[in-house]
Amino acid sequence: MLKGMQRKEKTRNTPASGELALVEQIRRRAAGAAVGVRLGIGDDCALLRVRPGEELAVTTDLSIAGEHFRLDWHPPEAAGHRTLARGLSDLAAMGARPVAAFLSLGLPAELTRHKRGQPAWVERFFDGLLALAKEYEVPLAGGDLAGSALPVADIVLVGAARRGRALLRSGARVGDLLYVTGKLGGAAAGLAQLAKRNGARGRISDEAAQAMARHLYPQPRVEQGLWLARRGVATAAMDLSDGLSTDLARLCTESGLAAEVDADALPVAEGATLEQALNGGEDYELLFTAPESARLPRRIGGIGVTRIGRTMKNRSGQPHITLLAAGRRRALQPGGWEHFT
Amino acid sequence: MLKGMQRKEKTRNTPASGELALVEQIRRRAAGAAVGVRLGIGDDCALLRVRPGEELAVTTDLSIAGEHFRLDWHPPEAAGHRTLARGLSDLAAMGARPVAAFLSLGLPAELTRHKRGQPAWVERFFDGLLALAKEYEVPLAGGDLAGSALPVADIVLVGAARRGRALLRSGARVGDLLYVTGKLGGAAAGLAQLAKRNGARGRISDEAAQAMARHLYPQPRVEQGLWLARRGVATAAMDLSDGLSTDLARLCTESGLAAEVDADALPVAEGATLEQALNGGEDYELLFTAPESARLPRRIGGIGVTRIGRTMKNRSGQPHITLLAAGRRRALQPGGWEHFT
Repeated sequence: MLKGMQRKEKTRNTPASGELALVEQIRRRAAGAAVGVRLGIGDDCALLRVRPGEELAVTTDLSIAGEHFRLDWHPPEAAGHRTLARGLSDLAAMGARPVAAFLSLGLPAELTRHKRGQPAWVERFFDGLLALAKEYEVPLAGGDLAGSALPVADIVLVGAARRGRALLRSGARVGDLLYVTGKLGGAAAGLAQLAKRNGARGRISDEAAQAMARHLYPQPRVEQGLWLARRGVATAAMDLSDGLSTDLARLCTESGLAAEVDADALPVAEGATLEQALNGGEDYELLFTAPESARLPRRIGGIGVTRIGRTMKNRSGQPHITLLAAGRRRALQPGGWEHFT
Repeated sequence: MLKGMQRKEKTRNTPASGELALVEQIRRRAAGAAVGVRLGIGDDCALLRVRPGEELAVTTDLSIAGEHFRLDWHPPEAAGHRTLARGLSDLAAMGARPVAAFLSLGLPAELTRHKRGQPAWVERFFDGLLALAKEYEVPLAGGDLAGSALPVADIVLVGAARRGRALLRSGARVGDLLYVTGKLGGAAAGLAQLAKRNGARGRISDEAAQAMARHLYPQPRVEQGLWLARRGVATAAMDLSDGLSTDLARLCTESGLAAEVDADALPVAEGATLEQALNGGEDYELLFTAPESARLPRRIGGIGVTRIGRTMKNRSGQPHITLLAAGRRRALQPGGWEHFT
């Protein structure tokens, strides 16, 4: 990050003094106790260490203004939080412990400037990102900064898992039970509130604020993923970033299976609809499978675990995912549901 | 990458069918023998393995249209090549062997579409990136894809170095000699040719074409960095991405030293000026220091090694970097040179 920032001092259209000060600020704020980071911001690469017998999990996630967040809808703190949460959620889905995060950030110069004594957008973005980083004890070990007409953030997470123990999408077997952590549809309900508000300010109800928070400040299920990998009970896992109907279809494809979901069993978030629970994305809960014989607690790390269905053999001509609702079976298509035909 | 692409199927403004086909194409082309990659594109994270006694080197580099490349100046193959070369060069600077690359790519839909039977921009971008990846035997193990109004690529390189043997910027000592690999200023001279041409087509001289190639297709010095780390002769190293005057000042700052450069000794690239050799960026050669007692060959892996000066004590009030030219000493400022005052 320091590296990247310095590069643009003279040649790029970014305000040198403000950005250099910003990089120093990030370097200072990002510094801290970090077991796995031998060398952080300031050299050509960061140097990381993992324990013997571990393998590395690596994931990258783009967040682009107008695509993944909107400057007029999302407070900068939420944009920063969500950027990191997306990456942490991918580590959670593998059952990997976070080792270090890297951030490549491209911003228009105006977002790096103070306005009438108020902190710059980028400072508030880092407030949100670093608060979540602190909570999950993941150091920001490097990255890159550049001028960009369009705000863009790419988060990289490096994690570690015991060799051969990471949770894959491909491990589910016929007859496994399907589980999810937490509640579903809350982020979609929150996004609907944000859309309704459309950038307007002023008072909102507590209920609307709570719904919005589920979209703006999702909690990655790192502890739950680690628990599942440590106990070895889950046969497959992934995070719910695009909605149950879409993500379950992916898990089934990777595992070569079909699945049946019980609509009545779904843990629908307060204020959300069944449609949002099935098709709304960005809940960042975990979806996982476990054999019928596995004993799962009702909660892991304070978060509820709900059985929502089971896997079955994939038969050609049959729907991939079936939804049981009101005593009837329907095919559940990714992103929407249709009557069984 | 697959992961990221799939996410946008229904919710983002990207052409689903074309992009899904593209991801499958990338997945197919990226697949291959990859010792360190246990799990590549297709799950929530990639899984990597390094050897016992190694630590990880991680770097990220943004390439943004209008900042780092221009759609009207840079052929897509060159944009892809340069994106990966920047990351590989950072690994080279640490003396780390490449293990895997990750690419986060945001593109407007039109760059993913075929035009009159010609390959899409993005296909040619991957032609350039994957050709270089093959040459350096680094697998593309994952990443993310998204729609974006502005083309943006973030390359992540993961490498491995023997514990405690990576080359840092901070290790130089007073009296060490300064060296560079290859020739300097060639990329700046090539960029000047591109600017002069300003997107025009038609015949160009062989000389101009060669100069442009140094800018468009830089070669990261991975083999040379590995050689230096293995032999343990270099006390500090970094890659020359922003020009000697700027990068040497950084190495001196990190090592707490000053330095003197002999202008007559500089290996100025054919067709380049001394000013371009001192201040032109993107040569991606290595700058390193070694004790006077160290014996260095004239070439490492076929690339020349040139002694260009020495480090000295940093005295307050004295210039950080001094240039010896035509028998006179001048202060060399980052990005330009001034008379000694």
